Amino acid sequence: MTQKQEIQEMMRCAVQEVRRTRPMAGSVTNAVTMNFVANAQLAVGGSAAIVYLPEEAAFLAKAGGAAYINVGTLLPIHEETLPFAAKTLHALDKPWVLDPVAVGIGTLRTQVLRQMQASKPSVIRANASEMIALAGLWGLADTAGASGVRGVDTTDTVASAQAAAAALARWTGGAAAVSGETDFITDGSVAAFSHGGSHFMEKITGAGCSLGGVTAVYLTAAPPFIAALTASSVYNLAGKRGEEKADGPGSFQALFPDGLDKATAQEIADNPFEIIDVKEIKI
Amino acid sequence: MTQKQEIQEMMRCAVQEVRRTRPMAGSVTNAVTMNFVANAQLAVGGSAAIVYLPEEAAFLAKAGGAAYINVGTLLPIHEETLPFAAKTLHALDKPWVLDPVAVGIGTLRTQVLRQMQASKPSVIRANASEMIALAGLWGLADTAGASGVRGVDTTDTVASAQAAAAALARWTGGAAAVSGETDFITDGSVAAFSHGGSHFMEKITGAGCSLGGVTAVYLTAAPPFIAALTASSVYNLAGKRGEEKADGPGSFQALFPDGLDKATAQEIADNPFEIIDVKEIKI
Amino acid sequence: MTQKQEIQEMMRCAVQEVRRTRPMAGSVTNAVTMNFVANAQLAVGGSAAIVYLPEEAAFLAKAGGAAYINVGTLLPIHEETLPFAAKTLHALDKPWVLDPVAVGIGTLRTQVLRQMQASKPSVIRANASEMIALAGLWGLADTAGASGVRGVDTTDTVASAQAAAAALARWTGGAAAVSGETDFITDGSVAAFSHGGSHFMEKITGAGCSLGGVTAVYLTAAPPFIAALTASSVYNLAGKRGEEKADGPGSFQALFPDGLDKATAQEIADNPFEIIDVKEIKI
Repeated sequence: MTQKQEIQEMMRCAVQEVRRTRPMAGSVTNAVTMNFVANAQLAVGGSAAIVYLPEEAAFLAKAGGAAYINVGTLLPIHEETLPFAAKTLHALDKPWVLDPVAVGIGTLRTQVLRQMQASKPSVIRANASEMIALAGLWGLADTAGASGVRGVDTTDTVASAQAAAAALARWTGGAAAVSGETDFITDGSVAAFSHGGSHFMEKITGAGCSLGGVTAVYLTAAPPFIAALTASSVYNLAGKRGEEKADGPGSFQALFPDGLDKATAQEIADNPFEIIDVKEIKI
Repeated sequence: MTQKQEIQEMMRCAVQEVRRTRPMAGSVTNAVTMNFVANAQLAVGGSAAIVYLPEEAAFLAKAGGAAYINVGTLLPIHEETLPFAAKTLHALDKPWVLDPVAVGIGTLRTQVLRQMQASKPSVIRANASEMIALAGLWGLADTAGASGVRGVDTTDTVASAQAAAAALARWTGGAAAVSGETDFITDGSVAAFSHGGSHFMEKITGAGCSLGGVTAVYLTAAPPFIAALTASSVYNLAGKRGEEKADGPGSFQALFPDGLDKATAQEIADNPFEIIDVKEIKI
Repeated sequence: MTQKQEIQEMMRCAVQEVRRTRPMAGSVTNAVTMNFVANAQLAVGGSAAIVYLPEEAAFLAKAGGAAYINVGTLLPIHEETLPFAAKTLHALDKPWVLDPVAVGIGTLRTQVLRQMQASKPSVIRANASEMIALAGLWGLADTAGASGVRGVDTTDTVASAQAAAAALARWTGGAAAVSGETDFITDGSVAAFSHGGSHFMEKITGAGCSLGGVTAVYLTAAPPFIAALTASSVYNLAGKRGEEKADGPGSFQALFPDGLDKATAQEIADNPFEIIDVKEIKI
């Protein structure tokens, strides 16, 4: 088997394992897209639960196979909940996904993201600007100051965030996934470019957040790099198929979970991607 | 008229009364599914309003014909709002639905659910695990300790929750409704099994919450047992019809409110159910 | 060019400018409909970001071209965030939309709405009852006490709110838009009646809120009266087209953003409306 074939075999196993066991991946996540996050997690075969309180986040950390932490719409309670949830997950050795939404727009956001560095998320999922800004915030080489975060949108290209993603993955010992027209996923050593998706994914809110939630579901059944690549693959596949049937962003959003639900393990593993040694990429 | 025909007549009246008067049923409910709750309430012909603050919950209790209380995604303010809303509703003799989501996963959740016992909800709507756990929490006979709550999912069967539901209904003097493949609704004396629905209802978030919200709408026009059975019937009917047209959970979710809106009073009353004396059920 | 043709030319320009520049209009808005608000803003070509914290609202005020403030589901933090966001926007001379949802149902709501009067929103978007109640709350002539607010629904007609809208627009120096079967938009001097829409818009939650969010997007590219009229026009057009394809409120909600996305600048400008001198209206 080639390296790619081994990866595809692991992706197939992750998809099947999730559908067989319906694993719970709890979330602390933003209010705008939490419905989409939960529905996407259910559509791929997982189970969802979302909380605000520190004690309840700790309960989900213990009860679930993995977790999803998104710093989106911060409330005062998050000052306590987010670092505590991350710490608990790390202490329990439970895999978790960090989504550093809109890093840089306020002091509480900066503070909780700083605090979570030591809890080493298994997967960091972000757009290019957020990935660059987080690497800067965490003091990882050569990336500080380059990001143009203006809210929840990226103003940087996926290519420009590859160094940041690799540095972050090396720091955590997990993986980092940059969402964009072509997704870039790396464990700091190898990297994957995952293709597909739809232009409608930028015309709906929550495509990125729900991808993070689905990555957490796959983290219950696969190591970080495989979980992130599997999530990107099913998103790129369902996005492409949804676009073929959709007449606009609204019907796309309704059809998209159908694609997540229908995609077979084989189809997900076969969604186009390339594997490259990180050293070969000009970053 | 047989007992069943009398019940069907009351269901028809409830549906028609709601469509004629557009009654408001306010909610204090979780952030994940509040949009679905409100849309389902509108689709059956009611009106919706959702608040967080104690004073505003009291306003809705006074202004509305009934209310829906769901302990889903607790925030600190809910420590005050939830018991106060329940107390106000009880004092005003306004019917209300309690949805004890994820009972048992944290101390605040346990505390507010304990406090609400004295306010005797007209209908308790829950999945099997939650129903069993609530009966245990409220010290009702023979049910403590049996539940396997792990978050928002049930790990128990509807049949195993029948005794808990009956005990709860007898305590409140209202009704209890266990959602599942076949819904079980009881007032502690008689019970109904309501059939239909769709496997997609487990693949979307909020089917249960929105059923609770719709039950509150019917509570403005019918006694607890009839309101809960009417809500289950329209859900089972719209679920079945939605599944016939849907291509997956996403399109199902979009089509489901269409079914709520279209179902006639006669069709809702005719949706398959059986009425049984609770003493005849082996529980 | 007639006055109407000049207005249509400005509407076309606003639509094109938004699609070309993808302007960000941040929001502080209610939890029930925030997903719909963001998706509608994206569908017309804008960009969305939603926050709760005062500092982050100030960040969005600075970073965005306009903003949307909706007092829907108040949390304790909103006591600080809402007046501070309004003050910041006013100090920065950034245009913003106020949506006084359910004005009158609680003391905090009344307090924050009073405080925001001095920050003069560029557009006030509300249903008839809310518009009348806000004009009363702000001490504007001849309108106090007339509203029948009972929650989020209107119990007054659009016609009965014309005087309130005109008084509010004259106070702010901006525009006021009353949503209903026919929308009424005025700057206190001229007024527009915008036609179209769908009966399904009353059967879904968030049609009004998301219209406010879209108005904020157009405020980045047009003066208040034009922005509000353009938003009403695209809503009335997309509503009418959505109704033709929809089978009920659920499918309507899925199809509606498709219509926002597809409508051309010319079609939006051509959606039926009349322009009338406010003095000519019997109010």
